[in-house]
Amino acid sequence: MTRCPCEEEVLNRIRPTPEERTYVRTMGQQLIEAVERSGKAKAMMVGSVARDTFVRGDRDLDIFMLFDPALSREELQEQGLSLAHRIAEEFGATWREKYAEHPYVNATIDSLDIDLVPCYAVASATEIKSAVDRTPFHTRYILGHIGGYADDVLLFKQFAKSGGVYGSDHMTEGFSGYLCEILTIHYGGFHPLLRAAACWKPGEVIDIERHGTKEFEDPLVVIDPVDPERNVAAALSLSRMFEFVELARGYLAEPSEAFFCRPPSPPLTREIFARLLSARGTHLFSIAFATPEYTPDTVVPQLRKSAESIRELLERSGFPVNRIDVCMGKERCMLLFELMADTVPVVRRHIGPPLSTRENAEKFLAKYVREEVFAGPYVEDGRYVVEVPRTFTRAVDLLRSKTLLDVALGKHVRRSMKQGWTVKAGAECWDEEFAVFVSRFLDRASPVVRIKRLTGK
Amino acid sequence: MTRCPCEEEVLNRIRPTPEERTYVRTMGQQLIEAVERSGKAKAMMVGSVARDTFVRGDRDLDIFMLFDPALSREELQEQGLSLAHRIAEEFGATWREKYAEHPYVNATIDSLDIDLVPCYAVASATEIKSAVDRTPFHTRYILGHIGGYADDVLLFKQFAKSGGVYGSDHMTEGFSGYLCEILTIHYGGFHPLLRAAACWKPGEVIDIERHGTKEFEDPLVVIDPVDPERNVAAALSLSRMFEFVELARGYLAEPSEAFFCRPPSPPLTREIFARLLSARGTHLFSIAFATPEYTPDTVVPQLRKSAESIRELLERSGFPVNRIDVCMGKERCMLLFELMADTVPVVRRHIGPPLSTRENAEKFLAKYVREEVFAGPYVEDGRYVVEVPRTFTRAVDLLRSKTLLDVALGKHVRRSMKQGWTVKAGAECWDEEFAVFVSRFLDRASPVVRIKRLTGK
Repeated sequence: MTRCPCEEEVLNRIRPTPEERTYVRTMGQQLIEAVERSGKAKAMMVGSVARDTFVRGDRDLDIFMLFDPALSREELQEQGLSLAHRIAEEFGATWREKYAEHPYVNATIDSLDIDLVPCYAVASATEIKSAVDRTPFHTRYILGHIGGYADDVLLFKQFAKSGGVYGSDHMTEGFSGYLCEILTIHYGGFHPLLRAAACWKPGEVIDIERHGTKEFEDPLVVIDPVDPERNVAAALSLSRMFEFVELARGYLAEPSEAFFCRPPSPPLTREIFARLLSARGTHLFSIAFATPEYTPDTVVPQLRKSAESIRELLERSGFPVNRIDVCMGKERCMLLFELMADTVPVVRRHIGPPLSTRENAEKFLAKYVREEVFAGPYVEDGRYVVEVPRTFTRAVDLLRSKTLLDVALGKHVRRSMKQGWTVKAGAECWDEEFAVFVSRFLDRASPVVRIKRLTGK
Repeated sequence: MTRCPCEEEVLNRIRPTPEERTYVRTMGQQLIEAVERSGKAKAMMVGSVARDTFVRGDRDLDIFMLFDPALSREELQEQGLSLAHRIAEEFGATWREKYAEHPYVNATIDSLDIDLVPCYAVASATEIKSAVDRTPFHTRYILGHIGGYADDVLLFKQFAKSGGVYGSDHMTEGFSGYLCEILTIHYGGFHPLLRAAACWKPGEVIDIERHGTKEFEDPLVVIDPVDPERNVAAALSLSRMFEFVELARGYLAEPSEAFFCRPPSPPLTREIFARLLSARGTHLFSIAFATPEYTPDTVVPQLRKSAESIRELLERSGFPVNRIDVCMGKERCMLLFELMADTVPVVRRHIGPPLSTRENAEKFLAKYVREEVFAGPYVEDGRYVVEVPRTFTRAVDLLRSKTLLDVALGKHVRRSMKQGWTVKAGAECWDEEFAVFVSRFLDRASPVVRIKRLTGK
């Protein structure tokens, strides 16, 4: 396999050193032995360390503790956590409990970030009793198939990270580590993968083990080799998929190390932000409220749903929206709305019933014939229409009103907003905590555009 | 048949006097004899005078001259016009040639307005060689079926006129005289017709002679008893149809003479117009140009089409439109556009190709990566989007620009606009020539709303 010179350089930079690898794997081995010594569970290393696809400096070590599937969920939880606590103590680690689908222990030993995760030792990935039970099968599959592609996976992961498309969390909606591995194995290396991706269409299907049973609606479908019912790329959005397609094309046309370095993205200062915004001539509004105390994977989809509902409310109320975006901060969440108008005439067309529904039509007429209206009721294409005053002629008044709580917000978002929210307009939306977010909003560009502008090519 | 007292009063007012009827019919008879004396053609009276459904003071007399169908169109035209000229001269009339589908002579004798129309004496209405050939069959059908309903037809016509739904021309899009007659006969009088119409649905079908063959898409379908292929109500719009439905309901609920008197509609003064407009808060624009020298039935549909195309251009350009309307004046035509915004931010989202169409996507990227843009190109739902400056940020500049000539205008409208047009904004749209039109635009209301507000009921 021939590599571009820049790829060799990147590999030299990101490939773990032999010492690092030995150190991490030794620590993993000791933890496994400690688990198995207890007689309570089997143990295995999973994740990129186990698969030898970790990037230098990654200090994440995942140890799964495989319990008898006959245990109840409560027993698994109790015995799993208690064993994990004991082992963490035995290794002199500082540790804390965390919660994914079920609880696990996160421990710090030296500078390693170690997860001790109880799961069921099921016989196959199609018989899993909880989501984490699948992970050992993924690790075994990759170990059995990665062949000589470990470096290719490293390159691909670094490429995806720099391009901003790595991570299957709800904020990123990109490529998971396992998805990177499967794709690299399927296409036979980093370059063949890029060449294939450059031609992807929405609805692309990759079925590495030729299971070929279930149909999926997702933009990219990668049938899990260990579970035919599952799409490994289910979390990937159409936007992230085609940002990767763009990166693949851009890199194949002009390979360069820039594709492996996350471009620096210093936030705009408040002054430059204000100047850019005023050049656009649009009307920017932010809504901020306390961040609900749930994980990003719970909160972020709710932020998106809430922003979408508010966008619809704005449009319905006569304020055309250019773009929206959301950000979940540590303390506060922000929803951004860029409007094409911040005020709207007081007249509003209110569409009434068709005259052919006699009872409704007569009620409508009786109501509005007596009211102070701007025009109508009149007949248009068989329906009554009346022109009445609207409640909000300024977007800011609408955004500050309780009407916002009437639209479909996410559950936790609504609960937080009930405690209050703040609305800012124009350059006031710039804010120390959200400087990067609001800057990126104005300065939006695809990954390749960023690289080309940065490198001046 | 019992009538409301107000109907008797109306009939006493609109029914022609015996003297008037005798006078008009005698004149008709003399003209028929003069035509037939020539030996060139048969003749008959058609229209409401022949059918005894004319309203007092209507001074229209239609005499059709029925020629041998063996004549060519040229021969018919030549012989028809020459005979008509001779007869007009014989009666000492002032006369002029006019053109519908083919030419005819319009003559004035005393205060009567007389049309002398050459047509073919075909054997049945399904064999007509020109549109006017059908008229004699209509007259014969109505004469044979009107029975005791002449007064009912008079009431209905007066009712439809006052309600603004009488006339099958393209401006009105309402009920023709023949349609009024057929409906009255079909339902058996004015009241049964109103009771039926109060329950009409879009797509209502009336097939008085049970021909039941052809399907029509129109809002109201009234199969012509003398020609199963024709919908007598083809010119009726959904709006006029349901304005009539509204009038029927309103009258049945509270019969009053107000439904038979065209409500006075004095135009607003410029000052009141300006005040109403400013209360609405909207942005009104008018476009005016020289009226093309064609009949309203040619020009009015072109005005509608042109205004619709310009509305789409405005919307596409970021200016949301509340309402539009058109008016064909003697000298000038006017298109009115009421906008919700007269300025728009300079930023415009330009949607590019899907990234899956590789060649187009790469061209798009190459073009915009080098250009001064506000944001992008970025990837959204699998497509490129770029934010660029728009050409027109003020509606008035767009409406004054040559861009208007690029949209689908009617042929004659385009020709006239090529000679130039004027754009006015706000209260400046008020104009002596169009005072009634622009007033009605702001003051739009259904016929029943007008009556109720006028009578204070």
